[in-house]
Amino acid sequence: MLEELKHQVLNANLALPRHHLVTFTWGNVSGVDRRQGLMVIKPSGVSYDHMQTEDMVVVELETGKVVEGARKPSSDTDTHRVLYLAFPQTGGIVHTHSRHATIWAQAGLDIPAWGTTHADYFYGPVPCTRLMTNEEIAGRYEWETGNVIVETFERRGIAPAAVPAVLVNSHGPFSWGADAENAVHNAVVLEELAYMGLFSRQLVPALPPMQPNLLDKHYLRKHGKNAYYGQ
Amino acid sequence: MLEELKHQVLNANLALPRHHLVTFTWGNVSGVDRRQGLMVIKPSGVSYDHMQTEDMVVVELETGKVVEGARKPSSDTDTHRVLYLAFPQTGGIVHTHSRHATIWAQAGLDIPAWGTTHADYFYGPVPCTRLMTNEEIAGRYEWETGNVIVETFERRGIAPAAVPAVLVNSHGPFSWGADAENAVHNAVVLEELAYMGLFSRQLVPALPPMQPNLLDKHYLRKHGKNAYYGQ
Amino acid sequence: MLEELKHQVLNANLALPRHHLVTFTWGNVSGVDRRQGLMVIKPSGVSYDHMQTEDMVVVELETGKVVEGARKPSSDTDTHRVLYLAFPQTGGIVHTHSRHATIWAQAGLDIPAWGTTHADYFYGPVPCTRLMTNEEIAGRYEWETGNVIVETFERRGIAPAAVPAVLVNSHGPFSWGADAENAVHNAVVLEELAYMGLFSRQLVPALPPMQPNLLDKHYLRKHGKNAYYGQ
Amino acid sequence: MLEELKHQVLNANLALPRHHLVTFTWGNVSGVDRRQGLMVIKPSGVSYDHMQTEDMVVVELETGKVVEGARKPSSDTDTHRVLYLAFPQTGGIVHTHSRHATIWAQAGLDIPAWGTTHADYFYGPVPCTRLMTNEEIAGRYEWETGNVIVETFERRGIAPAAVPAVLVNSHGPFSWGADAENAVHNAVVLEELAYMGLFSRQLVPALPPMQPNLLDKHYLRKHGKNAYYGQ
Repeated sequence: MLEELKHQVLNANLALPRHHLVTFTWGNVSGVDRRQGLMVIKPSGVSYDHMQTEDMVVVELETGKVVEGARKPSSDTDTHRVLYLAFPQTGGIVHTHSRHATIWAQAGLDIPAWGTTHADYFYGPVPCTRLMTNEEIAGRYEWETGNVIVETFERRGIAPAAVPAVLVNSHGPFSWGADAENAVHNAVVLEELAYMGLFSRQLVPALPPMQPNLLDKHYLRKHGKNAYYGQ
Repeated sequence: MLEELKHQVLNANLALPRHHLVTFTWGNVSGVDRRQGLMVIKPSGVSYDHMQTEDMVVVELETGKVVEGARKPSSDTDTHRVLYLAFPQTGGIVHTHSRHATIWAQAGLDIPAWGTTHADYFYGPVPCTRLMTNEEIAGRYEWETGNVIVETFERRGIAPAAVPAVLVNSHGPFSWGADAENAVHNAVVLEELAYMGLFSRQLVPALPPMQPNLLDKHYLRKHGKNAYYGQ
Repeated sequence: MLEELKHQVLNANLALPRHHLVTFTWGNVSGVDRRQGLMVIKPSGVSYDHMQTEDMVVVELETGKVVEGARKPSSDTDTHRVLYLAFPQTGGIVHTHSRHATIWAQAGLDIPAWGTTHADYFYGPVPCTRLMTNEEIAGRYEWETGNVIVETFERRGIAPAAVPAVLVNSHGPFSWGADAENAVHNAVVLEELAYMGLFSRQLVPALPPMQPNLLDKHYLRKHGKNAYYGQ
Repeated sequence: MLEELKHQVLNANLALPRHHLVTFTWGNVSGVDRRQGLMVIKPSGVSYDHMQTEDMVVVELETGKVVEGARKPSSDTDTHRVLYLAFPQTGGIVHTHSRHATIWAQAGLDIPAWGTTHADYFYGPVPCTRLMTNEEIAGRYEWETGNVIVETFERRGIAPAAVPAVLVNSHGPFSWGADAENAVHNAVVLEELAYMGLFSRQLVPALPPMQPNLLDKHYLRKHGKNAYYGQ
């Protein structure tokens, strides 16, 4: 069942330690099959060293029911579900505690668009969510984490396909993309931006965002119908 | 004698350079056999490159007497003894000079609980001890180092099993756990928290601690009778 | 055609990930054949893992026309062209988004000459360009990026052979040299200087530039007719 | 001639890139044969990748004359000579531009003794030299660099065996020890201290030096007749 997707999701999970985005079993990647309404996700708390295709867990998007797999899915499964349900263009999702993105999340700050590296991938600042309420934390916590992400994009009018990452306040980053591999790609870029932004801001504490025209130029050089980067 | 424990302690020691927690011979790990009242610890000043099971030193917990091993035990042996005697749930102890935990120790500051990575492992700030008195330094220094750690947990009402690490002021971190391997695990996490906290605080100098409810949620998601993380 | 130069340019490109100067396909190196008026450059958006000599693209310096190669040249090709045309001593050019040089570029600041490591390679501060105008961004953007670099050296009276690098404001570094390999060498040095300068400035926020006589001494120890460093 | 010493000096030089203390050909290590009044040093500007025993250069301590070796000795040879002549207990010397020690040197600041890691190796702050005069720079520059180091230790009453390292202002670190290997060991420790000190000071900008009694305790635990660390 979904062998190809499980293989992709396994590989994307294994890419996390290779890109130095995770410690121990932290982090998880999922991928979705929109036609069947199923998502494949990493099992909870399993070491990356021994993870195999058959460890991947298949979960029904609408209900959260495990439909295949001997293991428990990632404890963050419900957050992934909310994002797939709310962001229909998303094919893969990554959650990590990568050092520098988490530093910004812990500080509760957006990562401003401060250079063309940012603009090549994210069409505006990477937003940080508001703090969750005690009710949200005490309730269906992982589901509510998804909701607060969706709320952030809706209230601020950000298109999730144009800014494929978020910082969950006091927690860490989620990123997404066309598929699991692309979501990991965006997680790597986000970590780069978080590192560089941290120290650009050290050099100039009140650094203004980059010029909107330069943001447009670089984002649109790589995205949309007039893109001309790559082969 | 205690072959299995010596093997565990050796492996835990060898994990320190692999996790980039030590330089040269710095750092040491021990494990305890509570039934026999014996602890196994790394020898003093021996290179990790050539360390073997038979280099491990067996020490009587109550007396500090070496009961097996051709080498001198770690110079920090008495600190380990005090911690085992005072913290009865502890099965393994690690001491390192890992860079970022040591940075906080040198600054004489607690590491506040600033995010869910912290809350997943430590149920509150990682405390930093008070400065030692000249009498403590001139006396049984390593033993007194243990005492000042125990005093810190007692005076501040912190449960050592819930916050399995400490920063010794002007010195560096000790961490502990159910066994030697788990103590190393906590040392790795502590180093991550120390790194991320350093720079979260750079972004927001007066950053308040995370919400108590979120701390509870994450700590209790992984610990205690209602834990649901992992398999 | 230009097999030797293509081989050099390929090797110089492959040196970028080895020196940790690039992530994914970011960055590009070119080399020039002045006699034939041709430059060889990396293709756009191709992975370093599978890059081969035959992927290199040959471009006419004056016209920008691709005269050999099945792939599209780097999207930054026009910037390279402007620099070769304006800086006649340049044999190779590198563009990266290396972390610390990019941090300074994003902050819009020169890297001051703060020590002998700097003086051994760069005869004065590494300049940061002015912000580009909306007209420049909307026009022939990559060509104008080259122009703003050239303008920076001309207006400030800097000799490009004596300061073989620049920071493009809100973007990242370009460096150059006698050939592609030497340009990569300078990119590595620039990254070192950017790292060290960032934190020297943290220690002393108003750190003055190094003594002019010491700058002279070190630069001229390695460059010009009285150089005495090396074999 | 001096085969054993040349072998030691080669190995100590090769340890520099392994400990991430050098980039390219930066840095050099020497060792001395006091009985014969000869020192062995790395050749100038030669890559670490291909360095061999026979590349090492033998130099007369008193005169600076090369007495064996086909290559030119390190351009810093005269600095090494001055240190050997002034510090009679020194058996090996290292010069690097290691990142964090150089950061402090560029800032022109001592590295204060801020923790037991420091006290285990350096019996007080690592001093930074004064700026050199224009006469010193224009004169026998490398010789004068040695002189300004010696002056620093004499004027401040620091014993070079007890504080086996210095920061040359606007330049970088020199360290020394009983032999070439021990000098490299101290260079590694210095880099650790420079890193940790930089960020301890970020946490507490006016951080006072560690307690003198604790400095004594740790230094004397490892040095002198009452040392008890190691086997």
